Amino acid sequence: MEITIEKTTSPKTKPDQNALGFGKYFTDHMFIMDYEKNIGWHNAKIIPYQPIPLDPATAVFHYGQAIFEGLKAYRTDDNRILLFRPSKNMERINITNQRMCMPDVDVDFCVNAIKEIVRIDQDWIPSAPGTALYIRPFIIATDPYLGVRASQTYKFMIILSPVGAYYPQGMNPVNIYVEPDYVRAVRGGTGDAKTCGNYAASLKAQERAAEKGYVQVLWLDGVEKKYIEEVGSMNVFFKINGEIITPALGGSILPGITRASVIHLLKAWGLTVTERKISMDELYQAYQSGILEEAFGTGTAAVISPIGELSWNGENIELGKEVGELAKKVYDTITGIQTGKVEDAFGWIVEVE
Amino acid sequence: MEITIEKTTSPKTKPDQNALGFGKYFTDHMFIMDYEKNIGWHNAKIIPYQPIPLDPATAVFHYGQAIFEGLKAYRTDDNRILLFRPSKNMERINITNQRMCMPDVDVDFCVNAIKEIVRIDQDWIPSAPGTALYIRPFIIATDPYLGVRASQTYKFMIILSPVGAYYPQGMNPVNIYVEPDYVRAVRGGTGDAKTCGNYAASLKAQERAAEKGYVQVLWLDGVEKKYIEEVGSMNVFFKINGEIITPALGGSILPGITRASVIHLLKAWGLTVTERKISMDELYQAYQSGILEEAFGTGTAAVISPIGELSWNGENIELGKEVGELAKKVYDTITGIQTGKVEDAFGWIVEVE
Repeated sequence: MEITIEKTTSPKTKPDQNALGFGKYFTDHMFIMDYEKNIGWHNAKIIPYQPIPLDPATAVFHYGQAIFEGLKAYRTDDNRILLFRPSKNMERINITNQRMCMPDVDVDFCVNAIKEIVRIDQDWIPSAPGTALYIRPFIIATDPYLGVRASQTYKFMIILSPVGAYYPQGMNPVNIYVEPDYVRAVRGGTGDAKTCGNYAASLKAQERAAEKGYVQVLWLDGVEKKYIEEVGSMNVFFKINGEIITPALGGSILPGITRASVIHLLKAWGLTVTERKISMDELYQAYQSGILEEAFGTGTAAVISPIGELSWNGENIELGKEVGELAKKVYDTITGIQTGKVEDAFGWIVEVE
Repeated sequence: MEITIEKTTSPKTKPDQNALGFGKYFTDHMFIMDYEKNIGWHNAKIIPYQPIPLDPATAVFHYGQAIFEGLKAYRTDDNRILLFRPSKNMERINITNQRMCMPDVDVDFCVNAIKEIVRIDQDWIPSAPGTALYIRPFIIATDPYLGVRASQTYKFMIILSPVGAYYPQGMNPVNIYVEPDYVRAVRGGTGDAKTCGNYAASLKAQERAAEKGYVQVLWLDGVEKKYIEEVGSMNVFFKINGEIITPALGGSILPGITRASVIHLLKAWGLTVTERKISMDELYQAYQSGILEEAFGTGTAAVISPIGELSWNGENIELGKEVGELAKKVYDTITGIQTGKVEDAFGWIVEVE
């Protein structure tokens, strides 16, 4: 399939590179293609960034059939443009599509569409340290129909947003509230799919944690409220007595691409990484025994988010105000690979030429 | 707050009353109002039904902050227009709003907005037996921002759809598949909120049941996969040895307005109605003992949906091809009240004058 390109005649003024924030500014163009049941994906085009007019009965407004991905393009010091494992995002979008009864996309075609729109809007990729161009592919159900069923039409879009450094003042450990009541997901639900409803469901606990002075929520499993699942919208890792433990993907946890990359990296360094169930009880006991060494979240936005304190049922797990040695090393290596400063030993980088 | 009214200059052709289906056709007008954090709800208006243009970064597409309600307007034989307990829907929309970190609406104002738009599009209310005007109030998050947080802007809309008889060939018991793997909701999640993500999450199981030849899914609890929750997007009732049992609202079940009305009605008839946990094991044992007399779903669309067969773990619960006596009596009474044919002893009816 060809991608038709219509360039903007009125480019926008670019925002200040030092005040980008996250997901606030959008570039001059967007990618869009349509799906119809008997035609498949068609009408792929890159057009000026613009509102899309939708019938008020459009399925996405009512029944939440919508999914997304998130990845970044980085500008290197020698002015090349790098993507980090983009095909992993497009493979995951199809896993999500499957769960949500939405049509598959062609992975190679979509990676190519990402490259194409990034190339067209390349002047938007910021160059200040820590900045990047965030890439948001997403699919929405577009049938103007109120019956509860899988839509027969969809739109796949890619929008781009220049984003600021996640740690403008340097990386700092954050305080986390272990959520006792609200549940993000349960096995058999949609927790391992990157679908919009999971994020709406998380807002209430996030709001409550913020009121109590915590930056993020740590989610427990929905069945026993005992086992650790994710932190905020990140996967989570613990270093206990030299071993690195991360919750196994049991159907309710998002299979993070940063998570997979961190596991790969740690193993390549000869460290022991175990994917298994881990309960808050076990974590607290490890803390009390003095063998809980580090804890950090992993995700596309922050890459690594060190945890300084965990508040759980009135108990506090204090990990200190310093970034752990391992978290720092993982962060430096992955962001180094992403920005071309560290050799890409695993073939994770795709260059936009 | 005043509602500004702009009437259409090009009214649509109305569809054939005998081929309406559900949620396919929409009337000439829609209600819309905006919310901004520092202003509150404002700019309420009824305008010609039209597409709404939205920035591709709009929160509803990405994080599913969207909720809805559903109710119906009925035309009586003497040409009056009746609504069924509309303030209950607007009270429930606020319960949903609360869970989803969305702003409250004024119940009386919204009931009035419903009356106003129904009055304006009253020629669209069908009169054939079993037909009605379906009313869909909904709220979507509209911040053009990709950070995961509660939106600070929203749109509340009401659209109207003339709908056909749910049982064009008369009420018939349906076959239900008891879902063993997929989960609709879990306590601590959003199962008791009428939010879009719950419906997207239900599609996969629904699709699988359809492939196996079943019309609906019966959901079990997400913790033990043992207790009965809902059927499709309806609440469920069982008559066992003269007693009527319906799953208690435990946080994962939608508090249906038809459910509440059916309970009220049954009690008014002097029947014993118990809201409690009921497991599939218990139901199957009741069936084997010959004391399971009837089973039916309740919801706005069908009012009553009798269950003819339940398939559970390879076992079949056969309730027969005849509509149960109780289901029939409840259906006739509630639809009778809704259409002005049966006296409204409980003050459930609101007339649109």
